[in-house]
Amino acid sequence: MDVLAELTGSIGSVGYGLAAIGPGIGVGIVWAAYIQATARQPESAGLTRTYAFLGFALSEALALIGFVVPFVFGT
Amino acid sequence: MDVLAELTGSIGSVGYGLAAIGPGIGVGIVWAAYIQATARQPESAGLTRTYAFLGFALSEALALIGFVVPFVFGT
Amino acid sequence: MDVLAELTGSIGSVGYGLAAIGPGIGVGIVWAAYIQATARQPESAGLTRTYAFLGFALSEALALIGFVVPFVFGT
Repeated sequence: MDVLAELTGSIGSVGYGLAAIGPGIGVGIVWAAYIQATARQPESAGLTRTYAFLGFALSEALALIGFVVPFVFGT
Repeated sequence: MDVLAELTGSIGSVGYGLAAIGPGIGVGIVWAAYIQATARQPESAGLTRTYAFLGFALSEALALIGFVVPFVFGT
Repeated sequence: MDVLAELTGSIGSVGYGLAAIGPGIGVGIVWAAYIQATARQPESAGLTRTYAFLGFALSEALALIGFVVPFVFGT
């Protein structure tokens, strides 16, 4: 029996983990900017809310794609 | 029996570890922004609290997904 | 038995090590923000202290989960 290493699990987990690094930081940066902008100019909250959710969603999408990728390439 | 390295454990642990890097930083950035915004404009604390918790939760979720992912792809 | 590399131990250690990177930075960012906010507006120290501890705990938790994860996935 050839055992390469007594490790178990799918490398897809590592792929998702790497894919989540950037979005985890990016989502935090987007909301941090929205919090500071709203605190300084409360009347702008409605105007920038659209872009806060847009920026968050576009950043988060990269991590969610990382979740789907192993199914495409084979788990 | 050919053993490449006498390592044990599941690679899922590495997956979670990587997935926790981004959210660990992102959550810190969100709360840092809320602390600074509240210190400067205390009257905005109620207005931005919603977004502080929202941003924290959305960033933290990526790490928690990283905890679930190995169960999906196989531990 | 052919051993290619004389590595021993569990990959869970690597998982925890990776999981500690983000929270290590995130906790530092939270306290740095609290220090600067308190230095600038000393009267806000009581108001923001709650969120400093909250942000610190929520970020630190990700590293502590990384400590538990290998027991769940197999050490």
